[in-house]
Amino acid sequence: MWENDLPITIYPIGIIENEFNTLDDWDRVKENESLITLYPSLVNGLQGMLPGQQVMVLFHLNRIHEFDLLQHPRGNPDLPKRGVFTLRSPRRPNSIGVTIVEIVSVENNVLRVRGLDAFNGTPVIDLKPA
Amino acid sequence: MWENDLPITIYPIGIIENEFNTLDDWDRVKENESLITLYPSLVNGLQGMLPGQQVMVLFHLNRIHEFDLLQHPRGNPDLPKRGVFTLRSPRRPNSIGVTIVEIVSVENNVLRVRGLDAFNGTPVIDLKPA
Repeated sequence: MWENDLPITIYPIGIIENEFNTLDDWDRVKENESLITLYPSLVNGLQGMLPGQQVMVLFHLNRIHEFDLLQHPRGNPDLPKRGVFTLRSPRRPNSIGVTIVEIVSVENNVLRVRGLDAFNGTPVIDLKPA
Repeated sequence: MWENDLPITIYPIGIIENEFNTLDDWDRVKENESLITLYPSLVNGLQGMLPGQQVMVLFHLNRIHEFDLLQHPRGNPDLPKRGVFTLRSPRRPNSIGVTIVEIVSVENNVLRVRGLDAFNGTPVIDLKPA
């Protein structure tokens, strides 16, 4: 880690399900739909969420266990390296992703969303109005 | 907590400094400037960050230790309660804030930014392109 001794503990609020399990699927991931299943005890937190709304999803990139402070944008070696905080790369000090999605449907504790660029099984940390 | 047993540990990458220490100051906080001081070992992660850019700041609302799943929007009792995931309220299951700020200056590991609605002393978790 880096020089600090103040870990912050957070807990998943739910899980992402879709058909994306490998990077080979990645080109299609943004166009496809994912399910976000919230833990049932949190279902009241969805009251007022409606199809068509844009929602910000925070999720934990739980397949990532390392980072580089300097990286080629989009992993393209022809582009000069830049600081990770100017990039969306998942290989970052805290591997949290943030994506704006569109709500397709809400049924009890299950959201169907479009545009979520996360693998199947990814833990969700928060949902906010976009 | 809720029913899950998978805590996620994250670490601050730096700290916010400004003149806002109480909610009485809140009306002015968005217009004013804050400093974000990164831990020095992470300074290379800022390479390529430039004044005028819009940056997304993730931060830990470390004064918040409780949440409600249903809340009045903006704390206004005249507005019907809604689910916390449709609101920006800080009293949420994982107390992480996300705000888009404008970079005013970058000097070594210190960013001066405009528009950050966070208290003095708030830990920063991530910076991403907005």
